Amino acid sequence: MTGTTRRLALLAEGRFTPFDAKTAVGLLRYRPGEVAAVIDGTRAGGTAQSCVGVGGAIPVVATLDEVAARGANGLLVGVAPQGGALPESWRAMVLGALARGWDVWSGLHEFLTEDAAFAAAARQGGGRLHDVRRPPPGRPIAARRAAAVAARVVLTVGSDCNVGKMTAALEIVDALRGLGLNACFVATGQTGILIEGDGVAVDAVVADFVAGFAEDLVLRAAADADVVVVEGQGALLHPGYSGVTLGLLHGACPSALVLCHHAGRESVRVPGRAPDPADPVIPPLPDLVRLYEEAAAWVWPAATCGVALNTLGLDDDAARRAVGAAAAATGLPATDPVRFGAAPLARAIAALPSARRTHAPHA
Amino acid sequence: MTGTTRRLALLAEGRFTPFDAKTAVGLLRYRPGEVAAVIDGTRAGGTAQSCVGVGGAIPVVATLDEVAARGANGLLVGVAPQGGALPESWRAMVLGALARGWDVWSGLHEFLTEDAAFAAAARQGGGRLHDVRRPPPGRPIAARRAAAVAARVVLTVGSDCNVGKMTAALEIVDALRGLGLNACFVATGQTGILIEGDGVAVDAVVADFVAGFAEDLVLRAAADADVVVVEGQGALLHPGYSGVTLGLLHGACPSALVLCHHAGRESVRVPGRAPDPADPVIPPLPDLVRLYEEAAAWVWPAATCGVALNTLGLDDDAARRAVGAAAAATGLPATDPVRFGAAPLARAIAALPSARRTHAPHA
Repeated sequence: MTGTTRRLALLAEGRFTPFDAKTAVGLLRYRPGEVAAVIDGTRAGGTAQSCVGVGGAIPVVATLDEVAARGANGLLVGVAPQGGALPESWRAMVLGALARGWDVWSGLHEFLTEDAAFAAAARQGGGRLHDVRRPPPGRPIAARRAAAVAARVVLTVGSDCNVGKMTAALEIVDALRGLGLNACFVATGQTGILIEGDGVAVDAVVADFVAGFAEDLVLRAAADADVVVVEGQGALLHPGYSGVTLGLLHGACPSALVLCHHAGRESVRVPGRAPDPADPVIPPLPDLVRLYEEAAAWVWPAATCGVALNTLGLDDDAARRAVGAAAAATGLPATDPVRFGAAPLARAIAALPSARRTHAPHA
Repeated sequence: MTGTTRRLALLAEGRFTPFDAKTAVGLLRYRPGEVAAVIDGTRAGGTAQSCVGVGGAIPVVATLDEVAARGANGLLVGVAPQGGALPESWRAMVLGALARGWDVWSGLHEFLTEDAAFAAAARQGGGRLHDVRRPPPGRPIAARRAAAVAARVVLTVGSDCNVGKMTAALEIVDALRGLGLNACFVATGQTGILIEGDGVAVDAVVADFVAGFAEDLVLRAAADADVVVVEGQGALLHPGYSGVTLGLLHGACPSALVLCHHAGRESVRVPGRAPDPADPVIPPLPDLVRLYEEAAAWVWPAATCGVALNTLGLDDDAARRAVGAAAAATGLPATDPVRFGAAPLARAIAALPSARRTHAPHA
């Protein structure tokens, strides 16, 4: 594929919805020029816009032939199937893409390169398998080195998984650049890496090294940027993923946090099952602000500088009211960075002191 | 080795001290009958007791020949070398053990089984390589299931790494059994696994699954026990390892915590360098109690039921004073479980309500 423009088929069979097809939605929003079509036989005939609210007229089709006819030269597994293993129909799709000589990208915990049939098909067809969640080499142990960089370091944190932490970070970087700042996005998850072309999926590294890889990412990014905006992962109150969230927080040593929340969500979504009254309740936003700041201060103090509210599902009036309520409740700038732009957050970040932090206060 | 009693040479070359040779010290304390000798050429001629304060007359020797003469039939890598890779002299020792047909155990992040020379030597000699940190199969995502078990679940937590969380857990289990309770130790680190013969090194699993593996361990242990005592890992205020600590806490869903601290330690030890004034300061014990209880409550509430103080390095009088001060400061039972026994902690745990926890309060 070297020298060729990437034209992707996004595989989202049976799952092409705003919540299930997070990776596909991310690509459609930030790399629409690279998307030839989406594959979901249950929604074929529609457009990306009609299914997930982004992607305009990019079509939804049922087969590889159709997407090939639209100039695709690669396949991207755009959602994570329940249970980790690829369903049989998806395997056939991956094999079909490899038979055409296409590259295949995947952000699954299960690596395509370790599947003998896929590896053989790639060799035969001449395409490559890209497991973007595969950890880089090394065993870095964090030691609060990221606290000493000259750049401002900002981390998006959230009330839950899948509330818009990556999107907020990308929109903030754009808005900061609009203010003339040299801002840099640090991808820490598979979708961010697919969009940015760089990064580490910190949820897929050996647990001891989450903070160390986060530290490395910040040190590298800070060498060339005034502001480093790190994509957050998970949530501190998520029963399954809180460890990744804290490791990322303590490795990145941000001085500023942006709290992300999906308006109206009242409890943490537990993977593999429908929402249940027994799921952990999401506390009010001011409590979340305090919670994240306390956890940050165990290693390095950070102040929340704004709220990014995902208002997906609300009309514009309701969205404006929700943003206003979030600002009033927290006393912080708030916006839906997708619907209303990230300028209020970018301005708050631009106003932060950029003084080098050389000493190590601890609570 | 099937049918043969394990007789181990503990490899701790140049590092056989109480702090550096954590794994060796654990084996000497809890499985002394399985230890033939310790290998450390820089301390050869001494005894385990004279070097690390446990292990009695078990000798320290310089060579495999000497330890073979004492009936060894296996080698255990008893410390983790800086930087992850085995030093050349250690490689020779591992190869020598394999050439003798011995099994070799390792708790390193770098797996011996993935080293071609070791694998070949094992095949040739007939011994086996045991990487106890190798994750089990599966990709479990925790969902607060451990909160519903009938058993009392206790987790040891700490002010830092290497303060005695595993030792406290093992001593508490012993003391609980002395009170007639059916108590079970859950190993979550390499030394605990080597002692117990079971468990998962949660710091070595893919980060997304730390809490899930912890949940699985508790669910399995709780099926047969009245009290499940889980070995803690790391510390919430450790810049490198806090993510593992929080994942374990939220996966295990303990109702009770035992706070472990090394008397006199004032700052968190950062791996790879000597203590430094810039290292994170360890807050007072009552602040640590509050910190851990708050973090637990993000997913499931837990109450601290006692303090395990490691008084290594103090004389008996000073140790008694330190324990008294910890009890006075926290208002909790305190002891050095090794020096004074774990009875005060076991009694506090035995007094906990064992009512099944079926509902899901959230802060």
